[in-house]
This record gives sequence, structure tokens and C-alpha cells, in this order.
Amino acid sequence: MLDREGFLQILKIMLNYLDRAYQALGDRTRRGLVERLVQGPATVSALAKGQPMSLPAVMLHLKVLEEAGLVKSQKAGRVRTCEMVPQILTEAERWIGERRQMWEKNLDALGKYLDQGEEK
Amino acid sequence: MLDREGFLQILKIMLNYLDRAYQALGDRTRRGLVERLVQGPATVSALAKGQPMSLPAVMLHLKVLEEAGLVKSQKAGRVRTCEMVPQILTEAERWIGERRQMWEKNLDALGKYLDQGEEK
Repeated sequence: MLDREGFLQILKIMLNYLDRAYQALGDRTRRGLVERLVQGPATVSALAKGQPMSLPAVMLHLKVLEEAGLVKSQKAGRVRTCEMVPQILTEAERWIGERRQMWEKNLDALGKYLDQGEEK
Repeated sequence: MLDREGFLQILKIMLNYLDRAYQALGDRTRRGLVERLVQGPATVSALAKGQPMSLPAVMLHLKVLEEAGLVKSQKAGRVRTCEMVPQILTEAERWIGERRQMWEKNLDALGKYLDQGEEK
């Protein structure tokens, strides 16, 4: 059974998943890896081929994406294949989208208020 | 006139604006400030009031949001007021949205391919 510490740990992960998602996306190399992986799964060596950096450096970037829950990988023999996990990406999009909509709604409300003022 | 160095500087800023936007959003306190500011402009001291941290700490977070172009501020006398700048937020949403759509498109294509296989 889940003890108190385990529960708090899960809660902390849930509260911070957007932190890790945006931090993971805040790097051009990692966004490049996402660009590639939305087109379909790819092996680590294929992903590294297009990058102006060493294989270990690419693997570190992939690890950040994996820890953020944006990417998952599995090993078959000596080949590790990565693929996108879309849920966190969708959540990251939703958070921003909702904030933008809120901003637009409040801008509309302000516009209407100012219009009313002019009519008087 | 813009010299070569100035031009490269602008190019670098343009290429990295998503880095700074996502890095700025990758912190719960800063997302909290955005949550507040999408509802309308607010003074720095009003923004700090709801936070379990010092005023200078809140100001540092606001600086990160400002440098990312998500927020702008202006001072009138001794009072600094912050407000949202929606463009970068929209760009950050768009980048993720386009990637998600790409992923879904490729998933659909895979689904169709597999369906065809079954029909044969």
C-alpha cells in the first residue's frame, strides 16, 4: 500500500510535471529531437546523426525529455528506440492555451467596458 | 544602420525566444504570476502579496518573465505595474500545437496503413 511519503512523492511529481515539461522544451536541441520524433519512432543513433554533438550529449538530452514524460524509449538488443508520449505535450499546450484564452476574455471585457463609456 | 554583429544578435534572440519562453514557464511561481496577469495588469507589490516569498524574490521571477517577453512593466512614480504581452505565449502554444498535430497526423497515417494490411 502507498504510504504517506509515497503519496507526497506522487503529488510532488504531479505538481511539477509542467516544470519539467517546459524546462525540457526550453532547449533548441531538445525541441529538434521532438520535431523528429513527432514524425515517428527513431533509434538513438538515428536521432544523433543529425546533431552537431556527440552521441552521449544527445543521450543526455533524450534523458531530459524522458524524465519530463515527453518521450519514452525501449531497448531491443543493443538498439534503443525512442518515441513520443503525447499526453504531457497536450497538457503543456493546454496550460498555455487556457491562459491565452483568459487573457483574450479579459481584453474583450475591457473593450466592452470602454465602448460603454464612449456611448454615454 | 544595423551592422553584422547587431544583425547576428537579433537573429540569436529570434532563434532563442522559445528557449526563454519555456524556461520562464518551467517554474510554478512564474506560472502563478502569469495566471494572475492574464486577468489584468497588476502592481509588483500586489503580485508579491499572494506569494510565500520575499518581494525581491518575486521581482527576480518577474524579471525572467520580462526577459522572455511574456510580461512588460512600467514605473509610475514609485509604483511598478506589470502586464501580459500575449505574442510570445501564443508562439509557445503554437509550437507545441503544431508538434501535437504532426504526431496525430502520423498516428492516423499509421492507423490507415495497418487497416489496409488487415483488409488484404
